[in-house]
Amino acid sequence: MSKRKIVVALGGNAILSDDATASAQIKAVKETVKQLVAFVKQGDQLIISHGNGPQVGNLLIQQAASDSKQTPAMPLDTTGAMSQGEIGYWMQNAFNEVLADEGLEFDAATIVTQTIVDAKDKAFDDPTKPIGPFYTEGEITQQQANNPEAHFVEDAGRGWRRVVPSPKPIGIQEANVIKKMVEANVITISAGGGGVPVVKEGQKLRGVEAVIDKDFASEKLAELVDADLFIILTAVDNVYINYNKPNQQKLTNVTTAELKQYIDENQFAKGSMLPKIEAAIEYVNNRPDSKAVITSLDNVKNLLEHDAGTIITK
Amino acid sequence: MSKRKIVVALGGNAILSDDATASAQIKAVKETVKQLVAFVKQGDQLIISHGNGPQVGNLLIQQAASDSKQTPAMPLDTTGAMSQGEIGYWMQNAFNEVLADEGLEFDAATIVTQTIVDAKDKAFDDPTKPIGPFYTEGEITQQQANNPEAHFVEDAGRGWRRVVPSPKPIGIQEANVIKKMVEANVITISAGGGGVPVVKEGQKLRGVEAVIDKDFASEKLAELVDADLFIILTAVDNVYINYNKPNQQKLTNVTTAELKQYIDENQFAKGSMLPKIEAAIEYVNNRPDSKAVITSLDNVKNLLEHDAGTIITK
Repeated sequence: MSKRKIVVALGGNAILSDDATASAQIKAVKETVKQLVAFVKQGDQLIISHGNGPQVGNLLIQQAASDSKQTPAMPLDTTGAMSQGEIGYWMQNAFNEVLADEGLEFDAATIVTQTIVDAKDKAFDDPTKPIGPFYTEGEITQQQANNPEAHFVEDAGRGWRRVVPSPKPIGIQEANVIKKMVEANVITISAGGGGVPVVKEGQKLRGVEAVIDKDFASEKLAELVDADLFIILTAVDNVYINYNKPNQQKLTNVTTAELKQYIDENQFAKGSMLPKIEAAIEYVNNRPDSKAVITSLDNVKNLLEHDAGTIITK
Repeated sequence: MSKRKIVVALGGNAILSDDATASAQIKAVKETVKQLVAFVKQGDQLIISHGNGPQVGNLLIQQAASDSKQTPAMPLDTTGAMSQGEIGYWMQNAFNEVLADEGLEFDAATIVTQTIVDAKDKAFDDPTKPIGPFYTEGEITQQQANNPEAHFVEDAGRGWRRVVPSPKPIGIQEANVIKKMVEANVITISAGGGGVPVVKEGQKLRGVEAVIDKDFASEKLAELVDADLFIILTAVDNVYINYNKPNQQKLTNVTTAELKQYIDENQFAKGSMLPKIEAAIEYVNNRPDSKAVITSLDNVKNLLEHDAGTIITK
């Protein structure tokens, strides 16, 4: 099989399950990388992206808990960049070890990534993505005074929480660098957590308090590096319609037109399977000869040996 | 002038002076980058490294302040990687803007860096580098119970503080990637804070709780990327002997032999000017046709127009 450029978007479960300690996350990342190295053994070139929800959430909680003049809490763009360093280090370190164990000589490296969003994106008018710590009603007054532009919502009786916009990515500032590294045979880890969201203001890229969906950012990355295959790894082996109903049906091969029909029928959960489906459709529409796959990490072996997971084509 | 590969090691004052907020640090980084872009305009290729002391210190304080099962404090290797993401993002973002302002088309990117140290380095027997929060004598008992291998020292009446080893770098895991990016004309930001310290255990690179001097790590980087010039930027325009004495003398051109003599005379402050001098000597000894320069950021303009700063040759 000829060498393929494959963008793999890793879900949160690839890094953190229930134990948030560094040692547990490092262990989980290593197990993930062990599965992914099968692609490298086969001659494929990996372009990895990943989520950062729990990691950046914990960072925000820690930053808020000790916000002071000496140790001011960092804004969301900066904590996002921190989480890219954190998870990227764990992941490149795991690649170093697993590749060496397999006798494979490849470099792996993390590129801190800025993802460009449109300042006029409608998402900025309607922040919906909850982030960081829960606050009491009393605390929220102070929070609002500190940051008048922030939006807070009451979260199902658990307290108040900040919500930020989730705009769509329109570009990746480091795409050219990532492409050059891919050409130089480096396994790249980039667009972590969807990348740091930035808006263009003249020549400046200004970091904004927003969260970019990592599947959309990974799709944009896949387009920009001319990937041959876009794999979204999640908790399930396949996409289903009528999920958890008596007439539940597993999707194996599906076209973008069929998926659009299912979306109209509200078959996919918002904020969970829906963005993955939308990202897969976007990719395949932009590269009609390519395909996208949605499956689980555990199913990667099957995916390599024969077609497996939910395969999306034009 | 032909194109030179220049490693520039930035001191802490290039990023943070007295205001630790993100906006103030971003502003400082931009001012720094404005000075550095003069090299790019002249056709030189920049390979940037930087310190992370205040940033990782604040992260450690924030992590310790909210250490819990849900938000466990991350160890020093991981917080170091976080600070590489943080400062790297600020710096590549500043390069993007300043390069665009100057009409220069170059990519800038941060590569998360692991620096290899020898597990048998004598520094591991004698941890001396203070990091993170101050503790009371009562708190120290609990800290010691949580982390029996940690060392703490009483710090001049201000409380107890953890000390970690500061081993010498023997390699940079991502040197090959950085070199490839330099060849591809990318302005790189790497080895931030000296890089994440790792020791080799078989095929594994295990992150350790240590701090690598950023000037020594930058020197190793300069060797590995075949730099033509190694510039260490600090708070002063020149190195002095008999500093702050009536017979104070500014060094302009100095050989490694002369510097060794001055070191024997204890002319340079430990943990401050001394490691810069030692790193410069190491670099010039390894690349006898090259030179190292120690000067201030504000003096970069003079350095470009004519020789300036303290120039170290074989």
